[in-house]
Amino acid sequence: MKVVVVGGTHGNELSGIQLLKNWQASPQQLARPGLSVSTLMGNPSAYRANRRYLDVDLNRQFLPELLADDSLANIEQSRAKVINAQIGPKGASQIDLVIDLHNTTSNMGPTLILVDTTPWDYQLAAYVKHHMPEAVILVEDAKPAAEWGYLCTVGKRGVMVEVGPQSQSVLRHDILEQMATMTGLILDFASLEQAGDLPELPGEVEAYRFIDTHYLPMDEQGEPLAMVHKSLEQNDFCELKPGDPAYQYFDGRIGVFDGDRPLHPHFINEAAYYDSHAAFSLAERVTLNVPAR
Amino acid sequence: MKVVVVGGTHGNELSGIQLLKNWQASPQQLARPGLSVSTLMGNPSAYRANRRYLDVDLNRQFLPELLADDSLANIEQSRAKVINAQIGPKGASQIDLVIDLHNTTSNMGPTLILVDTTPWDYQLAAYVKHHMPEAVILVEDAKPAAEWGYLCTVGKRGVMVEVGPQSQSVLRHDILEQMATMTGLILDFASLEQAGDLPELPGEVEAYRFIDTHYLPMDEQGEPLAMVHKSLEQNDFCELKPGDPAYQYFDGRIGVFDGDRPLHPHFINEAAYYDSHAAFSLAERVTLNVPAR
Repeated sequence: MKVVVVGGTHGNELSGIQLLKNWQASPQQLARPGLSVSTLMGNPSAYRANRRYLDVDLNRQFLPELLADDSLANIEQSRAKVINAQIGPKGASQIDLVIDLHNTTSNMGPTLILVDTTPWDYQLAAYVKHHMPEAVILVEDAKPAAEWGYLCTVGKRGVMVEVGPQSQSVLRHDILEQMATMTGLILDFASLEQAGDLPELPGEVEAYRFIDTHYLPMDEQGEPLAMVHKSLEQNDFCELKPGDPAYQYFDGRIGVFDGDRPLHPHFINEAAYYDSHAAFSLAERVTLNVPAR
Repeated sequence: MKVVVVGGTHGNELSGIQLLKNWQASPQQLARPGLSVSTLMGNPSAYRANRRYLDVDLNRQFLPELLADDSLANIEQSRAKVINAQIGPKGASQIDLVIDLHNTTSNMGPTLILVDTTPWDYQLAAYVKHHMPEAVILVEDAKPAAEWGYLCTVGKRGVMVEVGPQSQSVLRHDILEQMATMTGLILDFASLEQAGDLPELPGEVEAYRFIDTHYLPMDEQGEPLAMVHKSLEQNDFCELKPGDPAYQYFDGRIGVFDGDRPLHPHFINEAAYYDSHAAFSLAERVTLNVPAR
């Protein structure tokens, strides 16, 4: 089974980049029975520039229509085509599993992001959560996996590891350890599953399902009128109820959450999304029914 | 008494920038008896680019020899000369007080940085700490105030307000409130002191005095061999004792603090200092004797 672990898809998310360096120095850390594991540095140009990306977000470029359009040739569009040739092509990949490592400035803890809902994905979630109870499972199944532009969708299977809070351009020891632990568990699972040696798994696993992203209130000139209310700060995946404060307007007013049921904000105040004026994403709490082995 | 409040000296430290906008909409928030308060956007080019700076750190350019050298003409060197003409000139300024607003990604809380040790500075420290017990007083008197390149040294007096943790390019409601509160207290003090109406102040105030900055251990190729140990993370101004873990080497070893007495790290893992591989700065705890009014 061929596995590729990607770090540096965003050039200023340093945990994955440092782990690649560590693993190149100690490849045995990635070795698992039945797996052939290699590493890939996602966006070395952005890393050298100490930036998330230079032209466009690399982790949104892996859509078939973008990959097929040769007129799209900026730095990340070109890099995506090379990666697609190297570990894809998307839809017909020779790589069985792509694990893409990310950091967030939000307090999301160690989060496993699934973009598919196959039995394999749910079994993986159960295995990771069982061995790492602090792990958060986030399912992004608002559309089929193939329709996401994420790098991890280039493989036959793909998942993302998203750990925070960590400021851009910084390495945090605790965050790096969480990322290494979660990545190791994914490799353990892939090895065991491949060999038919999976242990008995819990029949259910708690998770969050992405619904949508909320944006800051803006004025007519495109300037934010408010910031995220302090009651949300650092409280990713806590419950936000209708009527709870969500925004603090700069003129002193408070904006409340106008949803019709309690939901769970995450990517709260994520620095990378600031240009788009995203305030937070919302998820619903769900229970995944884990198929038997 | 003429006061200038500066935000955006670093273009991705958004609290001061947002406060300038708020105060321009509600100038009465800055008004104090006896004070003429204006605002200045430090580095609008860097703000538009969502970066700390474009060519060099603006907050290191306010040295007489740099300001006098017309051959130094990059974006921040030029901007420094304009600011020096506008609210200086350094050493002969018409501005009585410059308050420069900064954010840090480190967990330093609301910190008042003094670059001088006059009775006025110590009385200010006592006043701020009395009204805002969570405030931290940090004295940077390793050299005379005039020999720092900080923007705030352009005025007859200058102080910095440094509040964190806040990721670059993000606004945190709680951090913004702390910055507004501390800035308001500095203006209150300046107004009362100017009028001879200062209340009785505590005779002593707890503070930290900057000693030096420690850097990550590096290899011969200039790459870090370690990261800051997780026991320090988020623990700015806590005590670090000789023999305590300070660094986690990527090969698994732990590097201990080799000082000869307990000291207090701050600017721990500051994102803006990552290019220089600074790990943290160290301060000693001191008690400032506050002169009577």
